[in-house]
Amino acid sequence: MQTELSKKLGVEHAIFGFTPFPAVAAAISRAGGFGVLGAVRYTAPDDLKRDLDWIEAHVDGRPYGLDVVMPAKKVEGVTEADVEAMIPEGHRQFVKDTLAKYGVPELAEGEAAGWRITGWMEQVARTQLDVAFDYPIKLLANALGSPPADVVERAHDQGVLVAALAGSARHARKHQQAGIDIIVAQGYEAGGHTGDIASMVLTPEVVEAVAPLPVLAAGGIGSGPQVAAALTLGAQGVWLGSIWLTTTEADLHSPALTEKLLAAGSGDTVRSRALTGKPARQLRTEWTDAWDDPNGPGTLPMPLQGLLVAEAVSRIQKYEVEPLLGTPVGQIVGRMNSERSVQAVFDDLTRGFEQSVDRINRIAGRSGQ
Amino acid sequence: MQTELSKKLGVEHAIFGFTPFPAVAAAISRAGGFGVLGAVRYTAPDDLKRDLDWIEAHVDGRPYGLDVVMPAKKVEGVTEADVEAMIPEGHRQFVKDTLAKYGVPELAEGEAAGWRITGWMEQVARTQLDVAFDYPIKLLANALGSPPADVVERAHDQGVLVAALAGSARHARKHQQAGIDIIVAQGYEAGGHTGDIASMVLTPEVVEAVAPLPVLAAGGIGSGPQVAAALTLGAQGVWLGSIWLTTTEADLHSPALTEKLLAAGSGDTVRSRALTGKPARQLRTEWTDAWDDPNGPGTLPMPLQGLLVAEAVSRIQKYEVEPLLGTPVGQIVGRMNSERSVQAVFDDLTRGFEQSVDRINRIAGRSGQ
Repeated sequence: MQTELSKKLGVEHAIFGFTPFPAVAAAISRAGGFGVLGAVRYTAPDDLKRDLDWIEAHVDGRPYGLDVVMPAKKVEGVTEADVEAMIPEGHRQFVKDTLAKYGVPELAEGEAAGWRITGWMEQVARTQLDVAFDYPIKLLANALGSPPADVVERAHDQGVLVAALAGSARHARKHQQAGIDIIVAQGYEAGGHTGDIASMVLTPEVVEAVAPLPVLAAGGIGSGPQVAAALTLGAQGVWLGSIWLTTTEADLHSPALTEKLLAAGSGDTVRSRALTGKPARQLRTEWTDAWDDPNGPGTLPMPLQGLLVAEAVSRIQKYEVEPLLGTPVGQIVGRMNSERSVQAVFDDLTRGFEQSVDRINRIAGRSGQ
Repeated sequence: MQTELSKKLGVEHAIFGFTPFPAVAAAISRAGGFGVLGAVRYTAPDDLKRDLDWIEAHVDGRPYGLDVVMPAKKVEGVTEADVEAMIPEGHRQFVKDTLAKYGVPELAEGEAAGWRITGWMEQVARTQLDVAFDYPIKLLANALGSPPADVVERAHDQGVLVAALAGSARHARKHQQAGIDIIVAQGYEAGGHTGDIASMVLTPEVVEAVAPLPVLAAGGIGSGPQVAAALTLGAQGVWLGSIWLTTTEADLHSPALTEKLLAAGSGDTVRSRALTGKPARQLRTEWTDAWDDPNGPGTLPMPLQGLLVAEAVSRIQKYEVEPLLGTPVGQIVGRMNSERSVQAVFDDLTRGFEQSVDRINRIAGRSGQ
């Protein structure tokens, strides 16, 4: 499964796997794909260094990349405390009441709330980049708009390709103007932040909008036929995130969450502002229902919502409070029905791809194939 | 472009075209596809008879079908007047106020409001079927659940295949149990009534759920690569509706609406309950915005909403009140940028399909193809 882009990056298959887990990223690259480590949770540079060392030791020399969350716009002269002060008391009370209703325990004294997206992540992302550029990464992806011009330049100076996510042709063209090398077209069905346009429509639209720039299709892809369909639509590769969450190499730190993912159908996700204030697809839970309830207080805009719920989400995850327990995941969750190794997922993708090519050749009357 | 189903129906290409316009339906069949005439607007049997006669005279002996709107559940012992009485006065006032705000003129004295979906359409659909079964139709499709058992039986007795639309694997399995022959998997991106699951995920899920029943993919398809992608996902054909709305053979009776469709991008539709009370994708207009506004009265459930807005929609269409003027259409509207003949659209689909097969063969390293 070879495209111009996969050849350029030196991978066997044009399958890109985004994951927060170093073991998954390394396994994807070892299997012949391109593993991309999500760096957003690494607030301490040493933790990132440790995990990149681990990948280096386990990737068998195969190429891999890094995904950061770097806001396109800087927020100047405003502190996190200023923004905390903008959160209405009624919303804070709603969080307290909802957690109390479900008996969610408090974090331990001094225990920090987990990951949150804020407008202040550029500094954190820059420390991540200072670490990452010491490693032979081949791709730098950004999940929030185009990265700043100096970051794109630094990447290019080091021979690193830069990718950025887009949910519309307009966004994709903005990335192109910012010197981005690869557009990840993120369809409606994808997990995490996503727009309203489904992959079947978005992929070819973005391909045409930014040609000859290569496009990766993201959203709704977790089987060989879906890989083949995305490449048929003009993508030079596929970008898969959700499908790895239930691999044996993944470590969600929550058996209950893994169970929920394995049991969920394609209709069990929702595109909700509950997590960050921007629409992000995730498991539908009583937590997202509470935020999406027209009789509730509703969500706040980014970055307020993320600040508001950060501690609550950490508590729900730590104590595995089942009705509230969720995670960003795409509609492909309906296909994640057993824990498999990354290699097994990969074999399924490549075998299914070949069978789909057989199928379309039969339909096209090219029987010799 | 041949599948088992296209062979069974005797068509050259596995492309099914749904349209309310006889001239479009006939042109699709003449071009080598399978034209399906939407019958919902034919409240007078003679009108349907006239248009089927016209198709017979213009289809060059090619096969074609009919699409009806036949509710799965009958509403017994309730009259339309009973239901009219259930509409809150505040909602009626909201319709009046909104029309007044935009200066929408009244219909002429005695002029009837146009089409509306109600729970009472079974009788109308049955009179349509009484007419249609006198013609050599090869397919009967139903847009609202499985048709009643006796209708399925009557179709089968006459050698007519029965198709039904489904937005989830669960719905598709219900159709299968009802003896339906073909499932139309209607993705989120489709025009008209549609569920929440996008085609990339829905198509293979439905294919697997009802195998070996043939599945047609609907939603987001309007170009050759999209046809190829849908067939790659396991569909035995594609079902296209929106793309024909701006063909030269279509007759929307509204140049302003045609202009709006040609100008609209893929992000200019919305899945709204404004038209019927169930989520249906349509052009986003100030009319849908008014109904979807959290500060407005909100929509009523089907069939109340359809009854409530029927006259208003007719007035908006008749007088082409631009900010309110809309129509059901899918996200593929972003690709409908010029008026073309049905044959030109068809040539684009089949040529693009062949190019996409070439492309996927190159990616798969089957260079001899």
